[in-house]
Amino acid sequence: MTQTGLFIHHVYFWLHHPESKADKTALIEGLQKLSKASTIKSFHIGQPAATKRDVIDSSYSISWLLYFDNAADQDSYQTDPIHLKFVAECKHLWKKVVVYDTVGAL
Amino acid sequence: MTQTGLFIHHVYFWLHHPESKADKTALIEGLQKLSKASTIKSFHIGQPAATKRDVIDSSYSISWLLYFDNAADQDSYQTDPIHLKFVAECKHLWKKVVVYDTVGAL
Repeated sequence: MTQTGLFIHHVYFWLHHPESKADKTALIEGLQKLSKASTIKSFHIGQPAATKRDVIDSSYSISWLLYFDNAADQDSYQTDPIHLKFVAECKHLWKKVVVYDTVGAL
Repeated sequence: MTQTGLFIHHVYFWLHHPESKADKTALIEGLQKLSKASTIKSFHIGQPAATKRDVIDSSYSISWLLYFDNAADQDSYQTDPIHLKFVAECKHLWKKVVVYDTVGAL
């Protein structure tokens, strides 16, 4: 088990006003700009699927799934000016963020 | 915003005995067998990265990230005999599972 190789960064956002289409759009647009950060290998912007089971948490508003080539690239993304600008411009939109950082288990 | 297209199913497992290398290996081996389910487009088996920040939840033991071509394929995976066998054989290993199902937001 190693910390090298592919690094998956999955962020879930809970908005202050999840019913606001404008706020959701503003966050999505912010993430689209953020996706230009040079260390991001690939990304996906999502919303909860329609599935409902006890184990499923569908209370979040937006999912932001990122792949990096390695942990160092994710570290560098955290302080990328594009990322800092995104946080400064969009942080008023969310009330909670949960992040799961994952590396290969094999 | 639509529920068609790519469907991302991200499962986080918390083990009864997270300190047990044998239990972690048993779950990983179970997931490797489960990865043969025919509707799975791609998968990633992971563990928490070394990152530490307030917003990061690194308390889980194993991450199981799946891509399906669409929601129907994920529905069908839920009742696939390979999936049912995995649950029957491995469910004693975990104390908690959280699932986030995500579809495109654009």
